[in-house]
Amino acid sequence: MTKKTTIVLFSGDYDKAMAAYIIANGAAAYDHEVTIFHTFWGLNALRKEEKVQINKGFLEKLFSKMMPRGAERMGLSKMNFAGFGPKMIKHIIDKHHAMTLPQLIALAQEQNVNLVACTMTMDLLGLKEEELLDGIEYAGVAAYLAEAEDGHVNLFI
Amino acid sequence: MTKKTTIVLFSGDYDKAMAAYIIANGAAAYDHEVTIFHTFWGLNALRKEEKVQINKGFLEKLFSKMMPRGAERMGLSKMNFAGFGPKMIKHIIDKHHAMTLPQLIALAQEQNVNLVACTMTMDLLGLKEEELLDGIEYAGVAAYLAEAEDGHVNLFI
Amino acid sequence: MTKKTTIVLFSGDYDKAMAAYIIANGAAAYDHEVTIFHTFWGLNALRKEEKVQINKGFLEKLFSKMMPRGAERMGLSKMNFAGFGPKMIKHIIDKHHAMTLPQLIALAQEQNVNLVACTMTMDLLGLKEEELLDGIEYAGVAAYLAEAEDGHVNLFI
Repeated sequence: MTKKTTIVLFSGDYDKAMAAYIIANGAAAYDHEVTIFHTFWGLNALRKEEKVQINKGFLEKLFSKMMPRGAERMGLSKMNFAGFGPKMIKHIIDKHHAMTLPQLIALAQEQNVNLVACTMTMDLLGLKEEELLDGIEYAGVAAYLAEAEDGHVNLFI
Repeated sequence: MTKKTTIVLFSGDYDKAMAAYIIANGAAAYDHEVTIFHTFWGLNALRKEEKVQINKGFLEKLFSKMMPRGAERMGLSKMNFAGFGPKMIKHIIDKHHAMTLPQLIALAQEQNVNLVACTMTMDLLGLKEEELLDGIEYAGVAAYLAEAEDGHVNLFI
Repeated sequence: MTKKTTIVLFSGDYDKAMAAYIIANGAAAYDHEVTIFHTFWGLNALRKEEKVQINKGFLEKLFSKMMPRGAERMGLSKMNFAGFGPKMIKHIIDKHHAMTLPQLIALAQEQNVNLVACTMTMDLLGLKEEELLDGIEYAGVAAYLAEAEDGHVNLFI
């Protein structure tokens, strides 16, 4: 029987998203069926780096502007130091030949990890499908629960 | 067999508590037996809005004063902007006809989600039963584990 | 059949680490096989208090210096107030005859909770085995997943 790993990625921090994707990639390598359900600030990891022109209301535009556009721009949960922390971490990742967050996300897509964006919080934060990476699935909390209730490893990150 | 969802709500952030209650309400709608175990800052979601007159020691009084009195007063984990963030989120929730945190808590009570307050951290933070919502259960980590060890979805938020 | 509790401790906050160790000690008391997998900032809970002389690169030295050396020096996730928050919490813990984080860690070791340090993030943060408490195990994400996939209670803290 295939084992299931289901992760809710709520956090918009670079380091927490790294942890989520490292676990997800590990589980996929062990033949788990893996789903990462991106909600709230975790949606930012799925944003395209380039700006996408979309008509939005005032608050939605404000949120889009203030939230990081894509994994590369996310900050650290600790020792962020106004953006210097992420630079340090990326430098060290490079030195140790480890993988950056965008590389971990690409690997997850290659390994067929299901990357799901929470449609309810997309609505709230004013994010549109055109702004997110290709190959993403769109679903709500019901779909998450259907996966999670049979999950062997369920995490909220 | 009834499925079980058990959530530890440690966080005192409005957005994280929203995520916890959205998952809990979803699981309850799918006939899971659902428990939210409120500990540390998560206890603030259960505080009554009005001030309750209680004799407390100095540090306990200080904690009570500095911690938000109820869900309505909690801040965001990201982009709080000294209280402007929560206003934005509540405005957007309203616009999208979504539910605010107090509404999500009320719905959880209607759906018989077990709302449990951790007695050990109530002691530490100096919170008394009179200060918390009606219909709350009081228990310790042993009761949490008894639920969680049979849980299908266990999350720490 | 022995039940399993597996906790990823990612957070470097005193209060979150307390929650992790309280759950772990509770589960061990109920005869669960318990593992705490310390990764990223959670590794700081395992650092020795005394300074260990080691040759390190510049960034690794910087990280070691800026990160708290051991459980006693960790800050709170909320109401830290530049170190005053942890003092308040420890004062209250003392008053209520509860256990501090270092005491909870010692109890976990007595109860044979498996304290594991994530080797990959040790590499990234430049932490060496000599800097961590005695009796720690060293492993990677594969070992974590092997535990977690049979776990009854899996949490990410």
